[in-house]
Amino acid sequence: MEKETVRIEGFSDAVFAIAVTLLVLDLHLPEEHLIKNGNDLFIFMKSQWPVFLAFILSFFSIFIMWVNHHKIFKQIYSRNSAIMFANGLILFLVSAVSYPTALLARYFNGEASSMVVAMYTGIFVLINFAYNLLWFLASRNKKLLRPGITDAAIKKIRNNYLYGFPIYLIALIFSFWIPAVSLMIILGLWIFWALSSGKIEMSINESE
Amino acid sequence: MEKETVRIEGFSDAVFAIAVTLLVLDLHLPEEHLIKNGNDLFIFMKSQWPVFLAFILSFFSIFIMWVNHHKIFKQIYSRNSAIMFANGLILFLVSAVSYPTALLARYFNGEASSMVVAMYTGIFVLINFAYNLLWFLASRNKKLLRPGITDAAIKKIRNNYLYGFPIYLIALIFSFWIPAVSLMIILGLWIFWALSSGKIEMSINESE
Amino acid sequence: MEKETVRIEGFSDAVFAIAVTLLVLDLHLPEEHLIKNGNDLFIFMKSQWPVFLAFILSFFSIFIMWVNHHKIFKQIYSRNSAIMFANGLILFLVSAVSYPTALLARYFNGEASSMVVAMYTGIFVLINFAYNLLWFLASRNKKLLRPGITDAAIKKIRNNYLYGFPIYLIALIFSFWIPAVSLMIILGLWIFWALSSGKIEMSINESE
Amino acid sequence: MEKETVRIEGFSDAVFAIAVTLLVLDLHLPEEHLIKNGNDLFIFMKSQWPVFLAFILSFFSIFIMWVNHHKIFKQIYSRNSAIMFANGLILFLVSAVSYPTALLARYFNGEASSMVVAMYTGIFVLINFAYNLLWFLASRNKKLLRPGITDAAIKKIRNNYLYGFPIYLIALIFSFWIPAVSLMIILGLWIFWALSSGKIEMSINESE
Repeated sequence: MEKETVRIEGFSDAVFAIAVTLLVLDLHLPEEHLIKNGNDLFIFMKSQWPVFLAFILSFFSIFIMWVNHHKIFKQIYSRNSAIMFANGLILFLVSAVSYPTALLARYFNGEASSMVVAMYTGIFVLINFAYNLLWFLASRNKKLLRPGITDAAIKKIRNNYLYGFPIYLIALIFSFWIPAVSLMIILGLWIFWALSSGKIEMSINESE
Repeated sequence: MEKETVRIEGFSDAVFAIAVTLLVLDLHLPEEHLIKNGNDLFIFMKSQWPVFLAFILSFFSIFIMWVNHHKIFKQIYSRNSAIMFANGLILFLVSAVSYPTALLARYFNGEASSMVVAMYTGIFVLINFAYNLLWFLASRNKKLLRPGITDAAIKKIRNNYLYGFPIYLIALIFSFWIPAVSLMIILGLWIFWALSSGKIEMSINESE
Repeated sequence: MEKETVRIEGFSDAVFAIAVTLLVLDLHLPEEHLIKNGNDLFIFMKSQWPVFLAFILSFFSIFIMWVNHHKIFKQIYSRNSAIMFANGLILFLVSAVSYPTALLARYFNGEASSMVVAMYTGIFVLINFAYNLLWFLASRNKKLLRPGITDAAIKKIRNNYLYGFPIYLIALIFSFWIPAVSLMIILGLWIFWALSSGKIEMSINESE
Repeated sequence: MEKETVRIEGFSDAVFAIAVTLLVLDLHLPEEHLIKNGNDLFIFMKSQWPVFLAFILSFFSIFIMWVNHHKIFKQIYSRNSAIMFANGLILFLVSAVSYPTALLARYFNGEASSMVVAMYTGIFVLINFAYNLLWFLASRNKKLLRPGITDAAIKKIRNNYLYGFPIYLIALIFSFWIPAVSLMIILGLWIFWALSSGKIEMSINESE
């Protein structure tokens, strides 16, 4: 059976690649007259740490989302309108990530901290929901999937995304209380996914 | 017969993907000194609703255009200069969508409302025209199409785009009268297309 | 013989696609306080005609360059460092087009007119030179080309680019004298290329 | 054995292509009221030489990095999580290059010169490190590589990147002392790589 989803993957890859690369546009230069020498620039750079932190956090989160997208679409061979639009929702949210990132960068240090962390974690709650939706829509019809995929493999992928949902919700709730903890939960979840994604792939291949 | 249009599709996918992802650049941050706390930010975000509405409307409209582009080019196997330039016209208009989107976002709430909705619906009239032109140029020479495509399938695709034209014109006319209705017509048309595109594809496959 | 240049084409396509889509970022919105109603916006849009003209001119010129790039690389099957870097030069110049475009848009109406038209035509002189260089480097070693390509076809492509060079130079010279004529020459050349590129392709296929 | 890394290459190509094309956004237009005629514009352009130099330097450096990425991935056939994330690190750094480029462009002429050259050379030290890491992770498991690759070819690629590291470090050290020398070292290294990359490829092919 031929894989029908090649052009969807190509388009999605491009959106992920652009979303991840546009993040750099939020690293703003200092006002020209504020910088007289290297020391001024060094002080400016230090004061910008939330900007760099937000840039790094968002870059690798979108990158891991792309890795996961890659992994899901390796199992999807056909497509229907439902998959097209669940994928469209993912791409919409991914392309929007740079906005809460810029808000986080600017207002993390200050009284609006809870608000911006809530929006930042909120978009990841939505993205996690969209991934669950995509896999739910794809896996309820085994004809759309890679021929020979086992039920165990389908369930493993589902659980991988399903378990993320309550954790993102907890991060969202923490943002109103101790915003820094929310960011650490998100960071922790990415590290877990980065490490576990290798394992899931292996076990899918083993079960073939 | 080998498909000759692979590189055109790749290039077009990239333009669609960039056009759709650049839209986020029009979500502007608040002026730094206006935001003292989370409440100020919340009030700012609420006041920005036309910006978010325009962003969502344009994202999904370009996304559906891409789905349709995908669908047309699945039926086109060869290419000539006429197809290249009809496709170029589509890409030009798609890449330009962000400009009327930004105008809509900024001036929808105000006296220039009719003007910006007219420009916004106007660009969709033009894009619909360009799709009709592309399919007209491709389908008048069956050698360019997928071998074995039926006349019924060709006609079905043509009608799909042809019927959109008067509706977009009505939306354009309404913009001078009740601009909100224009936007609802465009939204309605997208939902119709999203739902009907699944059906068209099925009936093309059935007719094979 | 397998085609080795697929990834170069993919990368080049992406650069062309981004360069062409970024042009829209130079369509600036009016200052918010200047626009009270639809009429103000209409007057603003009219005053912006050089911006729209420059946008259209540059979009279709980069698009035609992409069509030509596509056409050249259909004949190139292998690659060496020289081809990589001639292609890099083309991509560099293409990515830079938006800068003279923005200058043209802003200063065409005014005393700096000659200067900006000279820079605008100048970049096309350079791009034409880079295309000639690419084809010179590729065609001097027939092992790099599509197996079975005839000398007549090689010469036809060479002449197609070679004849452009003196015409771009004339456009550059006119820019110091009657700038509008320069732009018309460039526009004329694109129309000629758009029309002739179909013919060249046909005669290459005939000669097989 | 099928090549599994096609989609990674496509995604990476897109990030490289966007990173290289976004550089043009740092070529700023002059303030409108400063330019009265062509001469003013000419003087403005001359004063902008560090901006153009930084643009050219960064464009071709990212382009050569892409050529090298291309070359490494021609030898990598399978992938694991480690390769995914080493590649992610490369893409992160490549997408960030435009920030130190913009700083270099703005502050090279002035007292912050050492500081901006140090940041500019610093990012190339990091990128060189990431390439070494990628090849180290890929080559320690020959199952991931192109079947039939020789140890001599593996070693040749490793040395190519390894030798770059001390040279970049020297450039970094010079930046605190004579910043212009740092930039010349980086330029020299690129020319060396451009010339030598042709040779390495040949010798790998010979060893097959």
